[in-house]
Amino acid sequence: MTYSTQMEAARKGIVTDKMKDVLKTEPLTESELLELMAKGEVIIPANKNHKNLIGRAVGRGTKTKMNVNLGVSEDVFNPKDELAKVDLALKYDADAIMDLSTHGNTQLFRQKVLARSTVMVGTVPIYDTLNIFKGDIKAITAEDFFKVAERHMEDGVDFLTIHAGLNRACIPRIKNNERLTKLVSRGGSILYEWMIRTNNENPFYEHFDRLLELCYQYDVTLSLGDGLRPGCLKDATDAPQIQELIILGELTKRAWERNVQVMIEGPGHVPLNEIEANILLQKKLCHKAPFYVLGPLVTDIAPGYDHITSAIGGALAAAKGADFLCYVTPAEHLKLPDLDDVKEGIIASKIAAHAADIAKNLKGAIEWDHKMSKARHDLDWETQIESAIDPEKAQKYRDATKVINGETCTMCGDFCPIKRTGDIV
Amino acid sequence: MTYSTQMEAARKGIVTDKMKDVLKTEPLTESELLELMAKGEVIIPANKNHKNLIGRAVGRGTKTKMNVNLGVSEDVFNPKDELAKVDLALKYDADAIMDLSTHGNTQLFRQKVLARSTVMVGTVPIYDTLNIFKGDIKAITAEDFFKVAERHMEDGVDFLTIHAGLNRACIPRIKNNERLTKLVSRGGSILYEWMIRTNNENPFYEHFDRLLELCYQYDVTLSLGDGLRPGCLKDATDAPQIQELIILGELTKRAWERNVQVMIEGPGHVPLNEIEANILLQKKLCHKAPFYVLGPLVTDIAPGYDHITSAIGGALAAAKGADFLCYVTPAEHLKLPDLDDVKEGIIASKIAAHAADIAKNLKGAIEWDHKMSKARHDLDWETQIESAIDPEKAQKYRDATKVINGETCTMCGDFCPIKRTGDIV
Repeated sequence: MTYSTQMEAARKGIVTDKMKDVLKTEPLTESELLELMAKGEVIIPANKNHKNLIGRAVGRGTKTKMNVNLGVSEDVFNPKDELAKVDLALKYDADAIMDLSTHGNTQLFRQKVLARSTVMVGTVPIYDTLNIFKGDIKAITAEDFFKVAERHMEDGVDFLTIHAGLNRACIPRIKNNERLTKLVSRGGSILYEWMIRTNNENPFYEHFDRLLELCYQYDVTLSLGDGLRPGCLKDATDAPQIQELIILGELTKRAWERNVQVMIEGPGHVPLNEIEANILLQKKLCHKAPFYVLGPLVTDIAPGYDHITSAIGGALAAAKGADFLCYVTPAEHLKLPDLDDVKEGIIASKIAAHAADIAKNLKGAIEWDHKMSKARHDLDWETQIESAIDPEKAQKYRDATKVINGETCTMCGDFCPIKRTGDIV
Repeated sequence: MTYSTQMEAARKGIVTDKMKDVLKTEPLTESELLELMAKGEVIIPANKNHKNLIGRAVGRGTKTKMNVNLGVSEDVFNPKDELAKVDLALKYDADAIMDLSTHGNTQLFRQKVLARSTVMVGTVPIYDTLNIFKGDIKAITAEDFFKVAERHMEDGVDFLTIHAGLNRACIPRIKNNERLTKLVSRGGSILYEWMIRTNNENPFYEHFDRLLELCYQYDVTLSLGDGLRPGCLKDATDAPQIQELIILGELTKRAWERNVQVMIEGPGHVPLNEIEANILLQKKLCHKAPFYVLGPLVTDIAPGYDHITSAIGGALAAAKGADFLCYVTPAEHLKLPDLDDVKEGIIASKIAAHAADIAKNLKGAIEWDHKMSKARHDLDWETQIESAIDPEKAQKYRDATKVINGETCTMCGDFCPIKRTGDIV
C-alpha cells in the first residue's frame, strides 16, 4: 500500500475500493472524484479498522448526507434500544451514525456499533474521557485526552469530532460578547471548563500535529467541532462563533498538508436570513472543506418539533452548499430520543437533504420525484406507496380510510382533479 | 356608513373596527395600515355578515398568516369531526379556516363554522355547486355558479376562492405544454371540464364585473384561485401557471378599481431554488397583492410528511414575501386528514410562518425566541414549557424520561453544557 489516507491516495491518483463504492452511487466521474478529494472538497471517512464499511463521500458534487446521533447515557441506560437505533438508521438509509455514549462500558458499545454499521461512524471522544474520569475534570491530563481519542481510532471510528479550534484566544471573545445561551456544545463546554480550571491550552490545539499523526495512521477524518456554536437565534453569527471558524480554517490547512481529511462542524440555531451568509463564511474561511451542520434550527420556540425547525434550516443550508446534515429529532431540548423520535428525525433530515439536492440540480436527484408524480397522475397507488420516502407510513395512511370510488383518495373522492380531467387535458 | 368595503374605508381614511382589531396585534401604525390597505397590499377579509369575526390582516408588514382547511366529504362523512377541527384551529391560533365541504347539507355546516369561528372563513363555492348538481356538470349554468357564490356571501364567508383567471385563452397553453400531473386544482379542473363540455367561457371571467358587484356589496375578499398551479416539481413555473398569473394580475386591478379586496393563490409544488422567483413574479404581475400559497412543497416524494415538505417551502416563500400560508397535513396525497393530522399541519405551518417573520425582521417576532432561550439558559423548565409552540407536547416529552440530577434533561444529563459552564463563562 503506497498511501495511508483516502486523501493521500487521491493525490497520488490511486482509486481505492472506498472510492469505487462512492462512484457507484454518486454523479461524479473517477477523475472528478480524485480531483475533489485531492483538494479536500470531498472526503470519504473510512478508518482502516472499520472492516465492514461501504464508502460514502461527503462534499461538493455529491448527494447531501445525513447523520443519526445515538448512544448510551446514564439517565436512560438502555444499550439495546440504542443498538436498535443503529438498525433503524440503516433501514432508512442514513449516511452516518454518531455514537455519543457517555456512560457505562462505552468501548464495548462502540465496538458493537462499528460491527453492525456499514455506514461511517463518528464519535466525540471527549465525552468518553469525562465518563472514564467520572466527571472529575481536573484529574484529566492532556495525555488522557489523546489516549482516549486513540482508543476510538483503534476501534475503527471513521470520523472524530475534536473541538481543536476552541483555544485560549477564544476565551476573552466569549467573555466580552453578551450571549443569551453562552456555551451549548457539550464537547466545547468540557474543554472550556478544563482550560479554565487547569489554566492549560486546549490540548488538541496545542498538540495538533500529534493529533494529525494519529489521524494519518488510522485514516481518521477530523470533524472539527464548533464548541462555540450558537444555542439560540440571538447568538447566531456572532464574534465567538466566527472567531472559532477562522481558527478551524487554519487547522484545516495543516491537516491537508498532512493528507488528513477534514470536515467542519457548524450551527446550530440560525435565523433563516442568516443561513446563506453562514455557508459562505464557512466555505471561504475553511477553504471549501465539507460543512457538517446541526440543523440549523430557524426558530427556538418549537421544542417537540425541532425535526421540522431543522429541516427548514437544513434544506436551505444544503441548497446553499452545506454538505452533511446532522439530524435533529422531536426530542431535542427535552429528552433523549426514543425509537419513534429517531425515525421522525431521520425522515425529516432526508427530506431536507433531497430537497436541497434538487435545488442544486444534482444529477439524478429529481428523477425520484418524477417517478412519484407520474404514479400520481396515473392513480397508480402501488407505485406511489413503494416510491414514498416511508412506504409503511404511506400505506398506513392509504388504508386508514376507504374511498367509495376505489380509485382516488378520500381527500377529494369524486372531486379528484386527476380523475375528472386526466383524459380531457 | 359611508363605505362598503374595508378597502373603500381605507381609501377614505376611515379606521374601521376591524382595522382597530388589527392594530392591536400588528406592528403597523394606523396611517401605515390605511396606506397599505388603500393600495391593496394589505387586506382584512371581513364579510359584513360574519358577526363574531375579529379582524386579521394579510399582507405586507403584517405577521405571516396561516389557514386550516377542513370540510365534510362523501367518503369520510363526519360533520362532528370537521367541527372539532374548527375548535382545534382556534385553539392553536390559526388565522383562517377554509370550509371545503363537498357533500351533504353544506350550507348548514358552513353556517355552523361561521357561527363558531372568530377568525376569517373562506370557501370555494364551485365545489358546492358541483355537489348541488350531484356531479352532473353539463346541467350547471353560469347563473348557477353565481347563485351559489352569492349564497356563500350571504352566509358571511369572508373570502371566496374563485378561479377567474382560468379562461379559454389558457386552454391551448395547457394543451401545448407537456405536464406530468396536468390539472391538480379541484376548482380549476371543475371549471376546465365545464368549459370544455359546454364550450362556454369561464363565467367568473366573463362576468367578472358582476362578481365584483357582489363582493363589494358584502365586502367579500376575492381569493383569485390558481387553477393551473403545478402538481409536481416538474410542472412548476411553467407557461400555463404563469399565463394564469398574468390574467389574475389584470383582474386584480379591476377589483381594486371597484374597491374589492384581493389576494392571489399560488403553488403548490415548487423546487426550493424556484421559490424566490415565484414570489417575485407574483408580486410583479399582481401589483403587490397579498400572496396566499399552498405549501410550496419542495419535493414530491414524501407522502405522509407533506407538512414538513411544505413547512420548508412555506418558510422560504414567506421569508421572500408570501403573506399567507395554507397548511398542509401529513395526510396530503393520501386521505382526508384526521384531528391529529390537522394539529401536525397547523404547528408545522405556524413554525414556517414564525421563522419567516424572524427572517423578515418583523418587529416583535424574535422576542418569543429570546424568551425561550433565556429560559433554556436558566434551566427554567416551567417557562420553557409554557413558551413552547405546543406546551402539551413539550410537557409530555419532558415527563417521558427522568433525569437523575433533576435539573437538566436526559439528552445530556450531567453533560449539560449549560449546567457545567453557566457560571464560569
